[in-house]
Amino acid sequence: MNGAESLVRTLVDSGVDLCISNPGTSEMHFVAALDKLQGMRCVLGLFEGVVTGAADGYYRMAERPAATLLHLGPGLANGLANLHNAKKASSGIVNIVGEHATHHLAHDAPLTADVAGVARPMSHWVHTSASSRDVARDGAMAVQVARTPPGRIATLILPADTAWNEAEASAMASPPPPRAGVATEAVKAAAAALRGKGRVALMLGGVAVREPALQWAGRIAARSGCTLLSEYNSARLQRGAGHVQTQRIPYVVDSALALLKDFTHIVLVGAKPPVGFFAYPGKPSLLAPPGCEFSTLATVEQDIVAALQALANELDAQALAPACVAARGLAPLPQGPLTLEGIAAVLGGLIPEQAIVVDEAVSSGRGLAGPTQGALPHDWLTSMGGSIGYGLPVAVGAALACPQRRVIALEGDGSAMYTLQALWTMARESLKVTIVVFANRAYQILRGEFANVGAGAPGQRATDMLTLDRPTLDWPALARGHGVESGQAADLEAFARELRRGLACEGPYLIELQL
Amino acid sequence: MNGAESLVRTLVDSGVDLCISNPGTSEMHFVAALDKLQGMRCVLGLFEGVVTGAADGYYRMAERPAATLLHLGPGLANGLANLHNAKKASSGIVNIVGEHATHHLAHDAPLTADVAGVARPMSHWVHTSASSRDVARDGAMAVQVARTPPGRIATLILPADTAWNEAEASAMASPPPPRAGVATEAVKAAAAALRGKGRVALMLGGVAVREPALQWAGRIAARSGCTLLSEYNSARLQRGAGHVQTQRIPYVVDSALALLKDFTHIVLVGAKPPVGFFAYPGKPSLLAPPGCEFSTLATVEQDIVAALQALANELDAQALAPACVAARGLAPLPQGPLTLEGIAAVLGGLIPEQAIVVDEAVSSGRGLAGPTQGALPHDWLTSMGGSIGYGLPVAVGAALACPQRRVIALEGDGSAMYTLQALWTMARESLKVTIVVFANRAYQILRGEFANVGAGAPGQRATDMLTLDRPTLDWPALARGHGVESGQAADLEAFARELRRGLACEGPYLIELQL
Repeated sequence: MNGAESLVRTLVDSGVDLCISNPGTSEMHFVAALDKLQGMRCVLGLFEGVVTGAADGYYRMAERPAATLLHLGPGLANGLANLHNAKKASSGIVNIVGEHATHHLAHDAPLTADVAGVARPMSHWVHTSASSRDVARDGAMAVQVARTPPGRIATLILPADTAWNEAEASAMASPPPPRAGVATEAVKAAAAALRGKGRVALMLGGVAVREPALQWAGRIAARSGCTLLSEYNSARLQRGAGHVQTQRIPYVVDSALALLKDFTHIVLVGAKPPVGFFAYPGKPSLLAPPGCEFSTLATVEQDIVAALQALANELDAQALAPACVAARGLAPLPQGPLTLEGIAAVLGGLIPEQAIVVDEAVSSGRGLAGPTQGALPHDWLTSMGGSIGYGLPVAVGAALACPQRRVIALEGDGSAMYTLQALWTMARESLKVTIVVFANRAYQILRGEFANVGAGAPGQRATDMLTLDRPTLDWPALARGHGVESGQAADLEAFARELRRGLACEGPYLIELQL
Repeated sequence: MNGAESLVRTLVDSGVDLCISNPGTSEMHFVAALDKLQGMRCVLGLFEGVVTGAADGYYRMAERPAATLLHLGPGLANGLANLHNAKKASSGIVNIVGEHATHHLAHDAPLTADVAGVARPMSHWVHTSASSRDVARDGAMAVQVARTPPGRIATLILPADTAWNEAEASAMASPPPPRAGVATEAVKAAAAALRGKGRVALMLGGVAVREPALQWAGRIAARSGCTLLSEYNSARLQRGAGHVQTQRIPYVVDSALALLKDFTHIVLVGAKPPVGFFAYPGKPSLLAPPGCEFSTLATVEQDIVAALQALANELDAQALAPACVAARGLAPLPQGPLTLEGIAAVLGGLIPEQAIVVDEAVSSGRGLAGPTQGALPHDWLTSMGGSIGYGLPVAVGAALACPQRRVIALEGDGSAMYTLQALWTMARESLKVTIVVFANRAYQILRGEFANVGAGAPGQRATDMLTLDRPTLDWPALARGHGVESGQAADLEAFARELRRGLACEGPYLIELQL
């Protein structure tokens, strides 16, 4: 058994049985080990941002880490932006990054780089194996780090000689540590705030926006009359008919300030005090009003479900029917021109039960929440790190985690271009992903931001930097190029027809919304 | 004048008049400044790897830095792999990376990351502006660093408030420092080695593989009978009929060892002792034979041309006709099936005078050197950092630097997928780039490397990680998707026809070689 084989066996024995890969020479022994050993599914991505983003999406849905296989410093670098998103989403990932053989590093071959330095900004844990005999133990440690609640980024750097030299045995990661409980004082303080005067909110993040936490939050709201808030973005929000619904704090600072202006106390449950996505001249960074008090019921790492249950008990709300439960909306599908409101209504009507919606529609997606609230129950995934290019890869990972469920990826045309190679992996793995491209031929969000930061109206040269025209992107051709079927929609009837078609496909299907 | 305006003015006044951009909210004031001030051309890339790779290609041809405009830590991260390549190619680049406003950073908004930490592994200089009044001075320093010989990566991080707050004045970079001369002892030691017994080579790198250095090297070879070697990869090799030709040290370790086995002394001129691209079990990292001595005439930073001239004078070779001059080859164009040898011969016959060939054909490109040596004079650009995805972006930058010259980008199908978005920028800017895709539907190099590292023959799961099939990529569709015209070639006649067609286009043209 060589080091690479000891690592693959360790990963599989530790419950990591999916490896999303873009390998190079230094990873060939790891790839060879996949042939010799059973139990590891390997999925190829044609760009590393696809690989790391897919691992993020996998964790969000499977609640356990996948491994990635990346080639040296530059390969890791290409995956870094989606590791940033994964880190902010508290997704656990085990990155295996090949490195030159130990004795080769001194000679500064072309690909030599500071791999650990590249890893560090987007990893919770970085380690370079010193010998083939250490690789199994190091791999077990990486898994253990990755599944430490709420999920962490572990990067194991594997010099080629530690992969090809002999190893003694595989290892196994310790069981995932339980989430830490919250102190009784935190529960009592939250209860006091909810019983007190003024306007109080529970602000939910992390697993607090999933079941069963949402039901407990709904009971607390039923007793106290508090508002249930959630951050603009959530790693995985369970919503739709029958779920307790939250009010998402808007992206636009003025709208967020208006929503929050009357709150006197916000109880944080797996969330942080609300902050603007960006700073703008003359506007505050913190979105709650100056006098608003905060208390923390539970951090994102802690046992959020138990904390909410304890709070419900403390308020004698444990037997109440939850408040804020979304009702099934059954409005007829709208017809006519392709408006963002109409698109949202079509989506709301056609989202299948237990669908996974990956939302990277950016500015086009801001109005989607209302008209989809009464849809059949589904999961809604958004970018926690704000780095564009997360959507298609996360859709890959979500589909790998949940092969029985439909995935709908909502993409801006600008956003989709960053990691478009994900389409190929969807085709190769026959993933049931329906991609909806909001083709407005612009970085539309930046047109708004240009004004928001006080830069006035864009002139010709600035406009050129904000538009995707001359030439326009041909979405059916881009889809076909990657082996994905597609259709176009110029009105709402066509969108509904195309969406039904996509949702019936055995594999991926791309719909261009011709806005 | 705000900080962003002071920076744009500083860059333009310092001779940096091209900004390749993928901006976001935190860069909007910089974009706005492009409207207000004259003199800065701005080119949009739809992915940051396109942006940084284009800056690399621009420096290689224009011999002065371009600026990049990148969005926060993740945007910089997406550009990092091609910054690695640029750093290894000694290309000077001024990266302008937006950052959250200073007062916003404490609140850990989604895009907050350690931007300086991301920059450091691939930058020679990293600096964060502290105030809008410092931005001009910091920008001038960045330009100065970038154009310090032989070219350096300078990364200036610009918090949004330093862009939008008031500044006093612009600044101007000091003139580029001259290259340091070499000591007389180095010249005398090289001359002694060349006069001595045994087999001696000059190993050329950096500007030593360009004119006028090549002519001096040819005169030295004419006097001493030494061999002229160059690294496998060169940032910019001038070659073709009339140029002094070098022997490129092969990528394959056994071939390199065979070429170098009899050398007793290697004089380094802008190059390092030859090293294998990767390490392999049981094979040496260093490619020269154990007894071979090295001396350094000039490092890559030093005045290589003056050093070679001094060495020629020392050897009394200054008036000799250079040896190793390539003759014009005029073989008839081959016909028949699409072999790599035939493709190379077609290329050799049709490369236009002063064309710029960007070679990322990887394994398919290994046989190109011989049959193109007698082509019309041209420049040949290869990856110095070994990170795949450099080719199409470097072609963009080379075409921006030399609008009158033809660019031919030779791409593996696997390689082209990493930064395919470059096609769109080629179309938007009507760049005269002819892209030749060697579509072998595999990471062909890795099939060889799998055996080379001793992993045996790949089984099914390994093979899946090395092949680009199920589905195959549709290259004409991918080209059309990005707004680029294309053709296909299944034999050598068709390739010649398509290549002529591409070389006559006003803008980009993609040819799929159906291998």
